[in-house]
Amino acid sequence: MLGNLMPSLQKKIIEQLPNRPKLIIMDTMNFWMDIAMEDLLKTISMVDLLMVNDGEARQLSGEYSLVKAAQKIMELGPKYLIIKKGEHGALLFHEKHVFFAPALPLEEVFDPTGAGDTFAGGFIGHLAHTKDISYNNMKTAIIIGSAMASFVVEKFGTERLQEITKEDISRRLNQFVDLVNFDMDVQ
Amino acid sequence: MLGNLMPSLQKKIIEQLPNRPKLIIMDTMNFWMDIAMEDLLKTISMVDLLMVNDGEARQLSGEYSLVKAAQKIMELGPKYLIIKKGEHGALLFHEKHVFFAPALPLEEVFDPTGAGDTFAGGFIGHLAHTKDISYNNMKTAIIIGSAMASFVVEKFGTERLQEITKEDISRRLNQFVDLVNFDMDVQ
Repeated sequence: MLGNLMPSLQKKIIEQLPNRPKLIIMDTMNFWMDIAMEDLLKTISMVDLLMVNDGEARQLSGEYSLVKAAQKIMELGPKYLIIKKGEHGALLFHEKHVFFAPALPLEEVFDPTGAGDTFAGGFIGHLAHTKDISYNNMKTAIIIGSAMASFVVEKFGTERLQEITKEDISRRLNQFVDLVNFDMDVQ
Repeated sequence: MLGNLMPSLQKKIIEQLPNRPKLIIMDTMNFWMDIAMEDLLKTISMVDLLMVNDGEARQLSGEYSLVKAAQKIMELGPKYLIIKKGEHGALLFHEKHVFFAPALPLEEVFDPTGAGDTFAGGFIGHLAHTKDISYNNMKTAIIIGSAMASFVVEKFGTERLQEITKEDISRRLNQFVDLVNFDMDVQ
């Protein structure tokens, strides 16, 4: 999991690995698109999953529609793409598939700092823990990332993450299930 | 289902009904909040479900957080509240429950005119057809409303709605299921 960093450095890290990992995830930002687009495109071509926000996906692809943006970005190399939309949730794209993870509607967002990194941590943590990098397990992972991010914004810095228990996490995950679960017998 | 109209007229319509329906839904907009707030609040107090967009929910409640806004609006009378967020989906509130229906990520939005009314039509159509006004069935109805709205924006006016078949609708509903469906065994 390559955190947001100078793309040329992310690339060097990949090249230093004696064995290529089964899954390389890369986070990046608009700043590198502005000043180091060539390095950025080279590094993007070497990873399996790219993680950006909606504005960055649009800037990188030149497309306003996130569906079109996703197709263009996956043509750059990554087989998977996560587009984070802040309080509006996150999208996971793979081939022709798309999965949507909502953000939990919160009474109050105390401090949004670290939400994106916490999301990434919850996501990669679930994949690493289950040793399953399938698209189906990525859907679960994106929900877990969203749940973790929903905690971190409730207090300053990492305060909230340091105090929550496993039960708090389970309860929150159940809220996500309730949030999107519906009955549909398509006739 | 009271479409968006002068609140005093919506009120008169309710009063003309010899028997109160089991479910009265009301659509409204910011314009009436600006010029007829008193009439609006009176009419809102007489309905079961209010349907507004996110900006209107904030204006009506004076709260930025949609969770807080929803609680304040339900205190005005309605037991159910739908907050529409356009391309970011819709929320259904009832007591302490919240359900989220995503909008389908589309390649192109050709003409958004009528999306809100089509959403309302699909929603009430499903409730009327199934004769089931439970919260659980409202979740399904909100997905059906979102699916119908996702069609109407694909062409001008009602063009797309006039040409789609039952199979088109079923296929689209399946896309909504795929969009939010995930495995979660909360430990």
